[in-house]
Amino acid sequence: MDYSFLLTLGIVLLFNKLLSVLFGKAQLPQVTGSLLSGFLLGPAVLGIVTEAIFGIKICLMPSVFLNKLAELGVVIIMFSAGMGTSVRDIKTSGKSGFLVALCGVLLPLAMGAAVMHFLANEHSSIMSAVFLGTVLTATSVSITVETLRELGKLSTRVGNTILTAAIIDDILGLVCLAIVSGLAGAKVNIGLTLLKPVLFFAFVLLCGFLHHAYFKHIEKNVGDQNIRRYPIAAFALCLFMSWAAEVIFGVADVIGAFAAGMIIAMSPKGKFIETRFAPLSYLLLTPVFFANIGIKATIPNLNEYFIIFTLVLVIVAIASKILGCGLGAKLSGFTTKQSLQTGVGMVCRGEVALIVASKGMALNLIPRDFFGPIVIMIISCTIITPVLLKLVFKGDDNADKLEASPLVDSYDLPVCLDIVSDELIKADKEQQKLSKVAEPTDEDESFDEEIK
Amino acid sequence: MDYSFLLTLGIVLLFNKLLSVLFGKAQLPQVTGSLLSGFLLGPAVLGIVTEAIFGIKICLMPSVFLNKLAELGVVIIMFSAGMGTSVRDIKTSGKSGFLVALCGVLLPLAMGAAVMHFLANEHSSIMSAVFLGTVLTATSVSITVETLRELGKLSTRVGNTILTAAIIDDILGLVCLAIVSGLAGAKVNIGLTLLKPVLFFAFVLLCGFLHHAYFKHIEKNVGDQNIRRYPIAAFALCLFMSWAAEVIFGVADVIGAFAAGMIIAMSPKGKFIETRFAPLSYLLLTPVFFANIGIKATIPNLNEYFIIFTLVLVIVAIASKILGCGLGAKLSGFTTKQSLQTGVGMVCRGEVALIVASKGMALNLIPRDFFGPIVIMIISCTIITPVLLKLVFKGDDNADKLEASPLVDSYDLPVCLDIVSDELIKADKEQQKLSKVAEPTDEDESFDEEIK
Repeated sequence: MDYSFLLTLGIVLLFNKLLSVLFGKAQLPQVTGSLLSGFLLGPAVLGIVTEAIFGIKICLMPSVFLNKLAELGVVIIMFSAGMGTSVRDIKTSGKSGFLVALCGVLLPLAMGAAVMHFLANEHSSIMSAVFLGTVLTATSVSITVETLRELGKLSTRVGNTILTAAIIDDILGLVCLAIVSGLAGAKVNIGLTLLKPVLFFAFVLLCGFLHHAYFKHIEKNVGDQNIRRYPIAAFALCLFMSWAAEVIFGVADVIGAFAAGMIIAMSPKGKFIETRFAPLSYLLLTPVFFANIGIKATIPNLNEYFIIFTLVLVIVAIASKILGCGLGAKLSGFTTKQSLQTGVGMVCRGEVALIVASKGMALNLIPRDFFGPIVIMIISCTIITPVLLKLVFKGDDNADKLEASPLVDSYDLPVCLDIVSDELIKADKEQQKLSKVAEPTDEDESFDEEIK
Repeated sequence: MDYSFLLTLGIVLLFNKLLSVLFGKAQLPQVTGSLLSGFLLGPAVLGIVTEAIFGIKICLMPSVFLNKLAELGVVIIMFSAGMGTSVRDIKTSGKSGFLVALCGVLLPLAMGAAVMHFLANEHSSIMSAVFLGTVLTATSVSITVETLRELGKLSTRVGNTILTAAIIDDILGLVCLAIVSGLAGAKVNIGLTLLKPVLFFAFVLLCGFLHHAYFKHIEKNVGDQNIRRYPIAAFALCLFMSWAAEVIFGVADVIGAFAAGMIIAMSPKGKFIETRFAPLSYLLLTPVFFANIGIKATIPNLNEYFIIFTLVLVIVAIASKILGCGLGAKLSGFTTKQSLQTGVGMVCRGEVALIVASKGMALNLIPRDFFGPIVIMIISCTIITPVLLKLVFKGDDNADKLEASPLVDSYDLPVCLDIVSDELIKADKEQQKLSKVAEPTDEDESFDEEIK
């Protein structure tokens, strides 16, 4: 067996953390650092540097292993996203979140498709134009959450609407992905192709029902000592639904994972299960995912065409979300300033956009040369969002404050639990020390003497 | 990309958990269920069944991916074992634990080598005889811990000696492995081969020193909000040391992982880091590890020879530990009954024995046909240990009780923390419900109306 994957994995982890820490110190979003680290480790930069300077070509992650591990990472990222999507919260949050999400999906979809159609005509079909539009639909809200918290504006009406809309536009984006990838895989029968997502939806309902029945059964029969079987059963459900979504229903595996997450979120142990997956993500799968993205992103020949394409893509990505979500906010009765704030808060793209783009590359709908510009677009959005947010919230000190927001709280939970466990362990140690002080024993005496 | 690995992984997880739950219900050790599930999923049983009944050959886990994931699992299992090995606890526990461990390593080593030498003469060299002896050295203490806890005998002098000795014999077993695998890989210079483990030891000290310095640095500069960087840095250290141990120093990767774990155990955040790795193990890597073991275990033609060999191996494995550890206990002043109890408590073998045997197979020192008997030996030990323990502790109600035992407590920690987080989440939910009751809102009103 070749053991170099251990070293590669170690380098990926360290480099990823190092860049995200450095970015954090420079007041930039940490996720941008992670993404950049993958980009730097990949052939786009490190490949070029080593080739140019040392005359050798280093390919850090060539193996099937890391590729599959990254795919598993994608499944778990989407599973976690699904677990963060509570149907109950969406139902109670009402129409403003939905309107913002809907307009914020339709406009980027249309504008993204237009960019691909007009600027990359020779590379693209209608399907690939729609696919680029789909890449632009899903908002990544974590950077907005951090910035708003820093500004003290998270528990406001605008903040809460952004959180809800970001959840809903994930779902809408994945519905687009399901339809587009279903159509792209279709060779024979268009009716059958459109039937598949419907069958998949029925399958999800069935899984949800079975899970609910199973859960009721074990809740009656299982004590808290056996608490680990909940995350294990949840993970098995996620893997099974991902596989079925991809192989049986022909929609992407990530959609199955997301649906499994939504099912888990509805069970009483949902939050607990969600927190158990956090170490799996941050210790292993997310860094590998970002590194793998970097490897896929090659920088095409830096000619005028690709520079213009990238610039236009960045501008369209930002403008389409501000306009679309702002319109949705305005329609649901926000003031113009609040609408602008909402729109800006939805600009950021992240993991979901990357995952959709990767799927497009795998389906030959996004040409390889266009993946680099998409990565640059996402990095740009993550850097620009906090700057824009601080601008539009300037001087806005009398925002509507909300009393309590379960959505806001749920973002803090995993890190809080980490800190709590650390404190518990510390307290446990202190107590042991105290009990030792209470019964002083001579350290040099042998163990045999210590027992009276 | 082929997505069947998602389904395979799901089946492995479910089957593993199912069998361990069933075993638990039948009052048998859960780990035996896990091990058996791997065995059943592998070609040894499921392969034969499907081939015989359906006329098709199913190979559930053929891929490089699951093989490497299992190797990563091995690294993390040994890393966790290392983190459970506190140098401080060993130092204070004195000579009885050390004597039990030493005699309990030497006798199985000699008797295991004798079995291979006399019963499998045509298959083996002296090196492979020593290797089979090495497989028998490492005790797995978890089943003994569970049984003793059930009997209320864990916090006794015997219980504590077993815990300490099991930790020390892991270390002694790994030292044997380092020397044997170093010698097996040697082709040119025997002096260089013996130098390598020494250099590796120096390397471990260097890593420990660097880690300590790094830790002091970040402890000064990092708040508790950034607590996740500790496990990430620890994991990177583990991966780097595993790689170096295997590739640079020619001792096995698992030894590097174990040493990294011991370094982490000495840092103030050691316990916290250890608990963060628990979900990574039980959700993904341990089930895959057991399944992979099952795949490697083929049952050889069931002729008289292999049945006798397996029987002798089981008897030697049990007898050598009872005699060796019993002798050690007697030498350090235990009564005959206590010595017998200690010896029986050390009988059980587990993951480490499997890992050593796999390394032996990779080095061509354990012939493939002998891996099946080793797995059967381990399964037998796990089933027999609790039965024997209950016998030798019968009517023993006035054992020396210890006041407090940090070693005993540390075995409960990860599950306790799981339960605590679940309770915290429940409490959090209750509070949210209460605050909702305090300010009743009409669920049918839209979100816009809810904000005053």
